[in-house]
Amino acid sequence: MTENTPSMQGAVCPVPKKHSNTIVLGHGSGGRMMADLIKEVFYSQLKNDPLLAGNDAGVVELTDGLNLAISTDAHVVSPLFFPGGDIGRLAVCGTVNDVAMVGAVPLYLSASFILEEGLEISLLDRVVESMQAAAEEAGVLVISGDTKVVAHGEADGLYISTTGVGLLDPVVNIGGSQAQAGDNLIISGTMGDHGIAVLEARGELGFSTNLESDVAPLNHLIEAMLAVSKNIHVLRDPTRGGVATTLNEIARQSHKGIILDEQSLPVKPEVAAACEMLGFDPLYIANEGKLLAIVSAEDTEKVLEVMRQTRYGEGAAVIGRVEEEPAGRVLLETALGSTRIVDVLAGELLPRIC
Amino acid sequence: MTENTPSMQGAVCPVPKKHSNTIVLGHGSGGRMMADLIKEVFYSQLKNDPLLAGNDAGVVELTDGLNLAISTDAHVVSPLFFPGGDIGRLAVCGTVNDVAMVGAVPLYLSASFILEEGLEISLLDRVVESMQAAAEEAGVLVISGDTKVVAHGEADGLYISTTGVGLLDPVVNIGGSQAQAGDNLIISGTMGDHGIAVLEARGELGFSTNLESDVAPLNHLIEAMLAVSKNIHVLRDPTRGGVATTLNEIARQSHKGIILDEQSLPVKPEVAAACEMLGFDPLYIANEGKLLAIVSAEDTEKVLEVMRQTRYGEGAAVIGRVEEEPAGRVLLETALGSTRIVDVLAGELLPRIC
Repeated sequence: MTENTPSMQGAVCPVPKKHSNTIVLGHGSGGRMMADLIKEVFYSQLKNDPLLAGNDAGVVELTDGLNLAISTDAHVVSPLFFPGGDIGRLAVCGTVNDVAMVGAVPLYLSASFILEEGLEISLLDRVVESMQAAAEEAGVLVISGDTKVVAHGEADGLYISTTGVGLLDPVVNIGGSQAQAGDNLIISGTMGDHGIAVLEARGELGFSTNLESDVAPLNHLIEAMLAVSKNIHVLRDPTRGGVATTLNEIARQSHKGIILDEQSLPVKPEVAAACEMLGFDPLYIANEGKLLAIVSAEDTEKVLEVMRQTRYGEGAAVIGRVEEEPAGRVLLETALGSTRIVDVLAGELLPRIC
Repeated sequence: MTENTPSMQGAVCPVPKKHSNTIVLGHGSGGRMMADLIKEVFYSQLKNDPLLAGNDAGVVELTDGLNLAISTDAHVVSPLFFPGGDIGRLAVCGTVNDVAMVGAVPLYLSASFILEEGLEISLLDRVVESMQAAAEEAGVLVISGDTKVVAHGEADGLYISTTGVGLLDPVVNIGGSQAQAGDNLIISGTMGDHGIAVLEARGELGFSTNLESDVAPLNHLIEAMLAVSKNIHVLRDPTRGGVATTLNEIARQSHKGIILDEQSLPVKPEVAAACEMLGFDPLYIANEGKLLAIVSAEDTEKVLEVMRQTRYGEGAAVIGRVEEEPAGRVLLETALGSTRIVDVLAGELLPRIC
């Protein structure tokens, strides 16, 4: 699936000074600053096991034999409409995917809207229509909502927070800590499509492509994968901070090393070209319709096969493996045979990408 | 419990022109404009039974013998801290209460934060600390979260969307449509404390009071009420739009008439004075720690008794009754023996009150 090997220069990340006393854009990056903020402000006070597990959704036991997964996301993407999607589709898919990534079947969503005075109602209408279409595709219902209005200049058009709930069997134990040495790392398709498509929609690319965001609900793909294998140890969607940041989280949670094979990383030529020009690394660019799966070696082929039969998994490829060492680290083996450390995103790459 | 009888002049509501094509502050009021927007944009597209039921939480069957309630709210209150509370306590209590109002036991919350660049981290820390204190008081866990950052001028400090889930027995059927002729209407305490306290914190009152917001989790109060009566037909917290707007919703849902007794409406002297001066009617002012209960005549006394033994129900009083006519309407019987129609809030009374 390697359509082009991305240039691997470091991402251009303006890194604000450490120990800042105020919120800066980097705190929303999905990278290290956000992780520090979450640890210092949120985890230190709201501590409970489901939250501290640090997965895409919190999982709790509801009754004997039935676990509940809950996940929430605020969506502040700019612009509201972009090639391949809009904030409505993003709000539904982002939350459906987070619930599905712990192995749960997403069932119900809630959505709360913060509207800026002056927003066109016809635009809101299109966004809600898009939400409903995405919800139908995913097979979920939006059963609760809320609307608040703030004055002109107190929001940027429209923000949507969605929360999803899903059910899972307590025997399912999928999460960042479950990666095992010997496992393979699968990606469901090309990297960076969403981030570059949004950048182009903002007019920040300087040239035009036919690229579309990959924003999509992945729950049916995951259902198909889980139907053929009980040895899927980790599922995670590499959104803000990209594949690099997500893999670092998994490496830290599992205390394992993750080794990426540069030559097998799937990147579309347009994304590679945009990244080369802007000095970005596709490993750090957000995706909204891709997943990373860490799967036992013996089940890898059958999982790949079933993924490739689905709409959103047809580009599935093995891009790396899990080893005992270096524990908590992600390495990249380059085409030239050298190896370098792939770190988390340090500052802010692309604000308001989701 | 009538500490003062409010003056009943109409609320001062700037009513924007009808059929507006853009969002105006009135769309967030909790009143008629919001109801129209919800119907035309949200209900028309996201249609499903739990949503269309129009209660504080959507209720679905999870498994045999177990229903799930989900409710969500965006919180944009200004200022972030006010006498008696702050956005963190409000975000937890508002959602806990909405889940509890359908008779469910709230268990888990999610919280998504939209932070404006430049927000002081120490302030965020105090807000999260307050959320945790409120969650502990209510007995719920915040098990999932998200943080987004927008640039300076794209939000006003901090917005929080919370979603709550709770469980309920399928035999419980509490909702706006269940009001029955002959039932009594109970309120758990004084009206308007939250709205006037926030107004004072904004410096818009022109004089100072010792008034505090009533923001509180009501789930334990409801638990106590449900333990003594199976004939609680409706529970609703009169937040945006106040008691008047909430009762109109119930009258519409149940096709019953609700008759309010002016002399029994509990209002603190400070709230009455502020309303008199500003030309507001306490019936339209937001509450965040009060509930309305519609209860069968024979269970009214025992429900009142148990309410008065709890911290947040000690001011409980009967303030009206349900009759067959006028169906879908709320009437007020004044101290002078006359009767007037109490309509929903038409425009916007107090923006960003919650």
